[in-house]
Amino acid sequence: MVSDKSHSSAFNFLHVTYSKEGICHCQLSRPPVNAFNTSLWTELLTLLTFLEKHRYPHLTRTLILSSAARGNIFSAGNDLTELHAPSTSRSRFITFWTTCTLFLARLYKTPLCTIAALRGATPAGGCCMALCCDYRVALANTTIGLNEVAIGLSVPKFWALLLQRTATVTSEAEDMLLRGTMISAQSAKRLGLIDQLLQGNSIKLIGAAFRLAETSSHLTEAPGRAATKLAIRGAFADEWESYANEEARSAWESLSEPTVVHTLGSLISRLSTRKAKM
Amino acid sequence: MVSDKSHSSAFNFLHVTYSKEGICHCQLSRPPVNAFNTSLWTELLTLLTFLEKHRYPHLTRTLILSSAARGNIFSAGNDLTELHAPSTSRSRFITFWTTCTLFLARLYKTPLCTIAALRGATPAGGCCMALCCDYRVALANTTIGLNEVAIGLSVPKFWALLLQRTATVTSEAEDMLLRGTMISAQSAKRLGLIDQLLQGNSIKLIGAAFRLAETSSHLTEAPGRAATKLAIRGAFADEWESYANEEARSAWESLSEPTVVHTLGSLISRLSTRKAKM
Amino acid sequence: MVSDKSHSSAFNFLHVTYSKEGICHCQLSRPPVNAFNTSLWTELLTLLTFLEKHRYPHLTRTLILSSAARGNIFSAGNDLTELHAPSTSRSRFITFWTTCTLFLARLYKTPLCTIAALRGATPAGGCCMALCCDYRVALANTTIGLNEVAIGLSVPKFWALLLQRTATVTSEAEDMLLRGTMISAQSAKRLGLIDQLLQGNSIKLIGAAFRLAETSSHLTEAPGRAATKLAIRGAFADEWESYANEEARSAWESLSEPTVVHTLGSLISRLSTRKAKM
Repeated sequence: MVSDKSHSSAFNFLHVTYSKEGICHCQLSRPPVNAFNTSLWTELLTLLTFLEKHRYPHLTRTLILSSAARGNIFSAGNDLTELHAPSTSRSRFITFWTTCTLFLARLYKTPLCTIAALRGATPAGGCCMALCCDYRVALANTTIGLNEVAIGLSVPKFWALLLQRTATVTSEAEDMLLRGTMISAQSAKRLGLIDQLLQGNSIKLIGAAFRLAETSSHLTEAPGRAATKLAIRGAFADEWESYANEEARSAWESLSEPTVVHTLGSLISRLSTRKAKM
Repeated sequence: MVSDKSHSSAFNFLHVTYSKEGICHCQLSRPPVNAFNTSLWTELLTLLTFLEKHRYPHLTRTLILSSAARGNIFSAGNDLTELHAPSTSRSRFITFWTTCTLFLARLYKTPLCTIAALRGATPAGGCCMALCCDYRVALANTTIGLNEVAIGLSVPKFWALLLQRTATVTSEAEDMLLRGTMISAQSAKRLGLIDQLLQGNSIKLIGAAFRLAETSSHLTEAPGRAATKLAIRGAFADEWESYANEEARSAWESLSEPTVVHTLGSLISRLSTRKAKM
Repeated sequence: MVSDKSHSSAFNFLHVTYSKEGICHCQLSRPPVNAFNTSLWTELLTLLTFLEKHRYPHLTRTLILSSAARGNIFSAGNDLTELHAPSTSRSRFITFWTTCTLFLARLYKTPLCTIAALRGATPAGGCCMALCCDYRVALANTTIGLNEVAIGLSVPKFWALLLQRTATVTSEAEDMLLRGTMISAQSAKRLGLIDQLLQGNSIKLIGAAFRLAETSSHLTEAPGRAATKLAIRGAFADEWESYANEEARSAWESLSEPTVVHTLGSLISRLSTRKAKM
């Protein structure tokens, strides 16, 4: 595995390495919990655009997304300060939301082969990012779900539809969404949300992701793969992307409601106390 | 549990009670088999509109639908006399069908948490009503299905699509629809059409529905729940509702065909003989 | 079973027999591997149109599609010489593709009850034809899949969407499509792609298909069956059919690319060597 120092240094919150087999390993690296702020979404979008356009430094065919966090967490999801109206502004939020959506929708339909390597908590935006990949490899300690309702928010429309279309049992998917439940890796495997379940530690996890990438690499060269992926995912991704602006505007209205401001404010206080202890 | 006599008395075919926990329990009560006629659909629509608008008498958050029938039946589905052309008229049928559709489509996307408590036969309209709820709790003696084809009718378009989108196995759902099969509660559980399966009697059933309602009640207050439900069910419900008039007109043409009139006429005679014996 | 010699003689690549129970048994008969060329698609479309319009010689209600090949194969899929640009022409290809699409989309929504009886290799077009039927009965030696990506092509859009909508696990369906995997009959049964799995030989297979046809025959007379099938499959079939011309034009561009021409050319050479040995 060759680390491309010059390229990595372009990022503050991503640790990016390239292997000779055409695999790009991108570790989310925004301590303590990889919360997605505008900068992190922008860096992810820059990386994806870069890989798709230049296929550099060697022909990159596979993108592995994992967590560099010390704790057991893939990502806590969107940074709540980006959603808390008094901590941001309408225009900053709209930039935040459209960048987030643009990245996720493009990840969903990218010609690259994409693998999420999950361990620990994978709520909200972390879950959605994982569902946008082609494969989800996970340690047994993973918990996953779109838990927005449980913390007083609503699930973004296409995030909810993505979980519903991926899950094998519609009524279980709806129950998860309407309660904001996080489920175990075992339940997620049964429900079709996780493809491969592993015992062990981070090293085992990344090893499994690389092995999956290697068994797929000759196929990801296949000229028909990207077109076929577009056939099954393109319409959904395009609808999602074109809904971003409308959603950003209506989400801002909702986030500006006093009860939501209060809920998010309390949540931020509680979490910052917890983080201070980490 | 507090019964609101004054409110209940507004209904002829529904027995409605409210509990302090924000649960409205609506028992279908049109002997002998809870067949849905225009009056019953209208009462259901009135109740739903009432609960959504006024959230009375205390903030109602959950609607439990069950059967007050003496026999083992949730509902026999639509009253055949409403479908039998010589027993009704074009304009009466169109009112019947649009009321039926309006209720079902709104039930499907209502912000309320909805639970169907099923026992015994749950064919056709009874099955569709159950599928429109968030949860289906059922006694082991339940049989469920859209059996229209088996009795010489066709399945209304969105009823068929709803069963298909709820079932885990597409080909089994299609087979059920194309044969008009009623399946056991056990099969329905496996196929994702029933969420919770119970041994026992009506009291156990209603108890389970109330327990489910209580475990959900703090979440149904969550401001994001209704928006999330709308995200996953709104588009389908809206398309269904806007199709009601067109469907009513084409259904009337089909119901006016001599063979269908004959089929329904024979069926009504047979059933009225059977009812006379009940 | 009564063979209608005069009608069968209209076909070069189909062996068609009719039974008194309203069952038409159509055996694909283009040695060695039932590759679909324009003539074969045209004959299939002619037969389907004939059965739908005239319901001849007795009221045909069920169509069984099987293979008359000596080897263990349902069909190898589309004849590669129809896809290899130097072996055909733009206008010939466009006729080929639109005929293929027209047949498959109409098969998917036909009022007839349709049963695919599968044994051995069922890749690409053979798999798609099977997925367009109401039922798939298969010998244990069946392997099935849309393997286009594995041979350097892309999966036609609606073929991919059809496999995805039929499969119980979305992520497994996507993996199959993106790798071009052929799966065993056992895996296909578990994934909802095969309805009935049999041990034994061709005689057992055809026997099982006839028994399924007979248990369905009284229902296929039901006036509501065709309307219900249209309710669940009509929109997809219509969208598919109306996409045929656009797809044919863009597929021709892709098939004219030097790398695709080379890939198909090599494949044709290898297969013709193999066929020579059969």
